[in-house]
This record gives sequence, structure tokens and C-alpha cells, in this order.
Amino acid sequence: MALFNNTRIVLASRPIGRPSLDNFRIEQTELPVPGHGQILLRILYLSLDPYMRGRMSAARSYAAPVEIAAVMEGGTVAQVVESRHPDFVAGEVVLSHSGWQSHALSDGTGLVKLQNWPAPLSTALGVLGMPGFTAYAGLLTIGQPKQGETVVVAAASGAVGSAVGQIARLKGAKAVGIAGGPTKCAIARDEFGFDAVVDHRSPTFAEDLIAACPDGIDIYFENVGGKVWDGVFPLLNSFARIPVCGLIAQYNSIGVFEGPDRLPVVMRDILSKSLTMRGFIQREFVYQKPKFLEEMGQWVVSGAVRYREDIVDGLQNAPEAFIGLLDGNNVGKLVIRVS
Amino acid sequence: MALFNNTRIVLASRPIGRPSLDNFRIEQTELPVPGHGQILLRILYLSLDPYMRGRMSAARSYAAPVEIAAVMEGGTVAQVVESRHPDFVAGEVVLSHSGWQSHALSDGTGLVKLQNWPAPLSTALGVLGMPGFTAYAGLLTIGQPKQGETVVVAAASGAVGSAVGQIARLKGAKAVGIAGGPTKCAIARDEFGFDAVVDHRSPTFAEDLIAACPDGIDIYFENVGGKVWDGVFPLLNSFARIPVCGLIAQYNSIGVFEGPDRLPVVMRDILSKSLTMRGFIQREFVYQKPKFLEEMGQWVVSGAVRYREDIVDGLQNAPEAFIGLLDGNNVGKLVIRVS
Repeated sequence: MALFNNTRIVLASRPIGRPSLDNFRIEQTELPVPGHGQILLRILYLSLDPYMRGRMSAARSYAAPVEIAAVMEGGTVAQVVESRHPDFVAGEVVLSHSGWQSHALSDGTGLVKLQNWPAPLSTALGVLGMPGFTAYAGLLTIGQPKQGETVVVAAASGAVGSAVGQIARLKGAKAVGIAGGPTKCAIARDEFGFDAVVDHRSPTFAEDLIAACPDGIDIYFENVGGKVWDGVFPLLNSFARIPVCGLIAQYNSIGVFEGPDRLPVVMRDILSKSLTMRGFIQREFVYQKPKFLEEMGQWVVSGAVRYREDIVDGLQNAPEAFIGLLDGNNVGKLVIRVS
Repeated sequence: MALFNNTRIVLASRPIGRPSLDNFRIEQTELPVPGHGQILLRILYLSLDPYMRGRMSAARSYAAPVEIAAVMEGGTVAQVVESRHPDFVAGEVVLSHSGWQSHALSDGTGLVKLQNWPAPLSTALGVLGMPGFTAYAGLLTIGQPKQGETVVVAAASGAVGSAVGQIARLKGAKAVGIAGGPTKCAIARDEFGFDAVVDHRSPTFAEDLIAACPDGIDIYFENVGGKVWDGVFPLLNSFARIPVCGLIAQYNSIGVFEGPDRLPVVMRDILSKSLTMRGFIQREFVYQKPKFLEEMGQWVVSGAVRYREDIVDGLQNAPEAFIGLLDGNNVGKLVIRVS
């Protein structure tokens, strides 16, 4: 008798605009049995991240879309339940990319053992994982903050933004955070130590940002897009750098964008201010990962870099939590505790 | 009795949109007399370049605008007529930034002696001057062409574009030129050796560009803006580099640009393709000038890099020639032979 005790969430349909619960389907399947050279993993934590919105669409992106009826993809922390692989033994904890499910088979490819992890295991999905590395590599390699420069980042209480601000300050730059609403602004200021915080929901957002950046902006770490860009753009200094790692504000957009056409003005300033815009995905900088884990690990352990997690219990709650993430409802790195 | 034998062209008014002859005024003034430490220069050649359109506007750019009633600025090759400066003697030829006039005083600041110049003196304003250096520094430092990559540049028969294409080929890349009309296309292909040339005036421009770039585009050297961008943009490969040195197609534009808004799509692709857009002005790379003069000088002398000049006689013809330059009427580097 088969045991239906693997739970998984598949893409039921592609969203048009904002995703809804209908786009996901929860399924119970048999627990898979590892073959020769395989490992059965039990998922402990699942990371939910804005990039997943892109994978739900059929449009070309930097990665292939998730197929309809396939398991939603995602980074996970998992424990080896049963191993028929020579390099793994039951009980070991690994970083994997097992997606939205309770169990997964692996042949070991891409698994990273989390031995002697310096912080709670969930941080392997956050401040010491993909979001933290996105902040670290994008800010230091593309942004290259210098002493006294002004670094601006949005979603400043979020997983990437909070790390950007703290690393900027560790490098001697002034960190200005942008966040939505008084709660997130207070967290960015009080918990993550931004030098100034501006609320993008305020009707005086543009003026507030000007006041917070009296010397202009040298680095804008772009992880949101949308109207924040319009406030930031006029304040960019000559030779400003703009690492672009996310555009959450436009992920749900569909069709043609209404005018006026902002591109000619952006191009004009790219030219007249010698701006650098550079899109990136953290895996491009994978060669920096060991240095990141060492340096960022020390910062986290010493408290020089703080982090906040929003841990939601139960895989079945992932779709709703993910939609809330796109809506900007959560504070800190969103992680599902699967088991 | 004063001798009114200095001729100069001043900015009479700021253009709205396309400049007209009314925006310029020709004046006769006294020949200036050099004081202690000064030099009197007689201008031999005046360079006319698209960037001058920016200087005619009051809008902020990477340089201050020309004031109303001030001499239009510009790079020049000049001969020392009289020197009261210890470092210069009559008869010497120098590169200067003396503007649209027949004579100028200088205190020696910024003058570069053109001793043993390897090519005709006018090339100090073209292939071995600012436009050639713009091509060299922008392509090699920002573009970084690699063997087998595809480099696209517009205004391919022009001073910058023709140099970009030839340097790209010398570095082992495939050079695809874009030019307006059959004459310029033929020059780009036959004289400058582009691997493929596409006419942006053709109704099948977009399809022709796709056919010319079967492996996509790795570097787009942006020196024109406008509709060429719309053809190039969808063909950019992941990790493509876009040095931006000019936007001649939009220099005359005024007011708000009509929609749709192209920026969100550009931002999306910057992210999903890890694109680099980088505005620059050649003087940022001035430390490379000696290497440029040596390497490019050899290429020019050996014929590995060819160039074409459009030399117009008479300072009084500069305004009309300049307007024609913005209209795309000339072929090759536009230079005024002043005396």
C-alpha cells in the first residue's frame, strides 16, 4: 500500500498580473524511494523570494519558467532521511533547491552541507544565503561603495535591502533606506541602523528623499523598480552606480506601459552623468561565495550585521505568504517552516 | 586704428528643437594682442561634433552651457602666431580648445603640441583625436570585445562609428554597422570593412538587423539613440555591454516624450539579461591617451584603421555645416578649415 505522505505545491496555472491562490495546487503523492546513488531529503525550510514570480510566467527570463503541473521551485534547507549515495549519511543537513514540497529525491548535485553553520539553519536561505549574497556581491562588486558616499536601497527592512544598508555602513558609506509605512521604516532605522529612512508611501516621498540625500546618491541598489525609481533618479550623482537585482514593483505588470516614455530621459542622464546600470543575478558571482560566507558569517556572529526572519509554519501556507510577499506585507526574510 | 580681422561665431540664442542659422551670429572683432605669458593662436581647423548641440542648451549636462553672446566652443588645431610664453614659439602647431573663431589668446593651459604628428593635422580632431579616442576607450574599456563576439554601432560611416567597427574587427569581433541610406552603408562596408551593414532608413530595418546578427549582439556602442535602439535592444545577449557616448537622435527633442513607456521593459531586460549600460565621456579615460596615440597612430599609419574627413572651407560656413551634421547630412569627420 502506497503511503501518500509527500506534500507538494505545483503551478496550477500562470497568473495574469497579481498571482492568486488559484494559480497553485496542493497535492499529496507517494513518498519517493531513493534508488542507487540517490538521497531522500526531508525539507525543513523553504525560502520564498520575489524572483519566483518570474518563474510563474512563460516569458523568457534568466531562467526557464516552471512548467504547469510542476512543483514550484525554491531554495530549501533539508535533512537527509535516507541515503544511497556514498557522500551523504542520514541526519546530515544540506542546502538544496528542492522547491515547494515536503520531501525530494536528489542525486547530490548542487547540495551544500551545512556543517558547523554559524547561525540558525534558516539563515542559509537569508542573510547567509541567496538574499544576503545578492546584497554583498551586488553592492561590493558593482556598487563599489567608497567612504562617505551615499547608498540608497529600497525594501530596506527586507532580506536584501537590510543587508545592503548594513554592508554599506561597514564600508564607510552613508546608508539611506526606503521602506513602505511607519513600521518598516522604524525597523530599518532602529534595527538595521540606516542613517536615514524615507517612507515611499508618504505624499512627500520625493522631497523627503531629497532631504535625506543632501549630497546626492552615489549608489542606488535597485531591487524594487516602480515609483521609487522616479524619486531616486534625479538625485543620482555623476558616476553613480546602479546594480539592478530586482523589480518587484513591476513583476505583476502586464501589457504595454503607459506614457510618457521615460527612457529618453534615462538615456540622457546615463550619458550626461556617466552612470552605470548593471543587472545581475547573484550566481554570476559564485566565485565570491567562500569569501562571503567567511566575512558575512563573522559579521552576523558578531552582530555587526543583523537580520530578521518572517517564519511561517506549514507548507500549505506558502501560496498565501508568497502573494503577501509580492504585496509587501511581510517584514524580513520570508521562510516557510516545512517540517 | 584697430584692425577688425578676428572672426568669431557666437551663440545668438538658444535653439528650441533643431538649431537654425538664427541661433548663431558672426562677428568681426579686433585681433587680440598677447600679454605677458600669453600666446596668440591662428586657428587652422575647427572640429564640429554632435556634443555641441548640448552646449547650446541651458539644461545641465556634463559640461556648462555656452553663454549667450559667447564664442561657440570646440576643439581646434592652431598655429602659434606670436608667443610671450616661454614654452611656445611662433610657428608651432598645437591642439587647443579655442572654439569657433579665427584667432584666440591662450596662456598655454591645455595646449598639446602636435610635433611629429603621424598623419595630416586635421586627424588630431578626428581619428587620432576626440572621436577616435571616444571609440577606442569606450569600446575597449567598457565594451571589452572578445574574439567572435558581435559588436553593433550606428553612424557607422561617421567619425566614432567607423573607428568602433574597425577596432572591433582588429580585436577579433564581428562588426555590424548601421547607417542611413545606401551611400553611407556602402562606405561603411567598402571603406571601413564592416562585416555587415544595415540601413536604418529601410522599412525592413528590424528584420535586416536580425539577419545581420544571427548570434545576437554582445556590444552595442550607443552613439545615436532614437529608433536604432528599438531595433538593437531585443537582440542583446546576456551580459551584453552598452557604452553610451551619444544620443544625437534625441538632442533636438523637446518636452515630454510620448508613450508607451519603454523604461520598464528596458529595466526588465537589464535584470533578466544582466546587461551593463554605461555612459561615458572620453576625458574620463584620459590616462589611456598615450597608449591610444601610440596604438591608434600605428593602425592609422599602417592603414589598419581608415578614416574619412569632410572638410568644409571657411569659418562662416560652420553653422550650416553643424546643422547638417545633426541632420545626418555629412559623411566622415566634419572639420572646418578656418585658415
